[in-house]
Amino acid sequence: MSYNVAALSKLVEQFERMPGIGHKSAQRMAFYVINMDKEDAKSFASAIEEAHDKILQCKICCNLTQEEVCSLCSNDSRDKSVICVVEDPRDVMAIERTHDYDGTYHVLHGVISPLNGIGPDQLSLKELLSRIGSSEVKEVILATNPTVEGEATAMYISKLIKPMGVTASRLAYGVPVGASLEYADEVTLSRALEGRRII
Amino acid sequence: MSYNVAALSKLVEQFERMPGIGHKSAQRMAFYVINMDKEDAKSFASAIEEAHDKILQCKICCNLTQEEVCSLCSNDSRDKSVICVVEDPRDVMAIERTHDYDGTYHVLHGVISPLNGIGPDQLSLKELLSRIGSSEVKEVILATNPTVEGEATAMYISKLIKPMGVTASRLAYGVPVGASLEYADEVTLSRALEGRRII
Repeated sequence: MSYNVAALSKLVEQFERMPGIGHKSAQRMAFYVINMDKEDAKSFASAIEEAHDKILQCKICCNLTQEEVCSLCSNDSRDKSVICVVEDPRDVMAIERTHDYDGTYHVLHGVISPLNGIGPDQLSLKELLSRIGSSEVKEVILATNPTVEGEATAMYISKLIKPMGVTASRLAYGVPVGASLEYADEVTLSRALEGRRII
Repeated sequence: MSYNVAALSKLVEQFERMPGIGHKSAQRMAFYVINMDKEDAKSFASAIEEAHDKILQCKICCNLTQEEVCSLCSNDSRDKSVICVVEDPRDVMAIERTHDYDGTYHVLHGVISPLNGIGPDQLSLKELLSRIGSSEVKEVILATNPTVEGEATAMYISKLIKPMGVTASRLAYGVPVGASLEYADEVTLSRALEGRRII
């Protein structure tokens, strides 16, 4: 292409590298940035740098935070005897949105996935084990995703922690609320049958 | 939500303001930024600021450029007697990709749209008229979008420039190459019939 504005192509390239953003979307976003006020563009750029500089991992639960210990771990009204183990900080947000859980979390930052070269050592398992070893933890809820890797990771962790005298539990499988049985896949449906409850 | 990381929410908010980006995508993009290398995040932030600072409008055709005159206007091998009038810099890119046009462009940066409060004064029409008045322009191709506003803008410009002794033309309407007649809308099809050519 003979027509090329270097600063523009560079910006489009940056957006294109993001997950779920193709060339057209990246272009649209770059044009949006160019049409921004100077002030807005500055604050956008600084938001990116700040997010990168200021966000740390909580030294207890490995969740993202701006302090040394996150607001969930430092909150005295949360039940410290239950730890919910999740793959990703977004899963913490999802569970918090239910307003139904008042225990603490532990963020693994991934799942065991030999195909992608991710073994137990790359996850924050050491921190989890030292938490269980040193505090009054009674139950660990393994809330990894219901995928093959998530399943394997949950199994692996449950085998590690059971000898420590802690209850390991897993989220219930079943048909999602509001869904139609007709469209549920076989595995989900058979798990829902398996886990049926007396009403 | 009791769990909130200020720097993260700020970044998500920034992405959410972009066209076509919802909350979930913005969140995914923010997490992508957090997981970037420090170096990459820096260069992303600077790409945004640079794009905003360095990109100017060409003083001839009003297209985006990093110099005073864009590479298309300063290119001697382009035919200066034809001007293709488009709404947006992206349209220039689209036409350039055809490799079938060797004239120059004029970017309006919008279309006349009374509903959105955009009149002829907000477009770069003055620049276009002074170009036509002062140089050897023979033809103006009105390549605004085939929408109501684009149509009206093309009409408006053609009425302005016809008295100046310049040919005004419009892109051909018809069925898109590779499409199926079955799915073409009535207006497009009747325009395609109207514009049929002897083979």
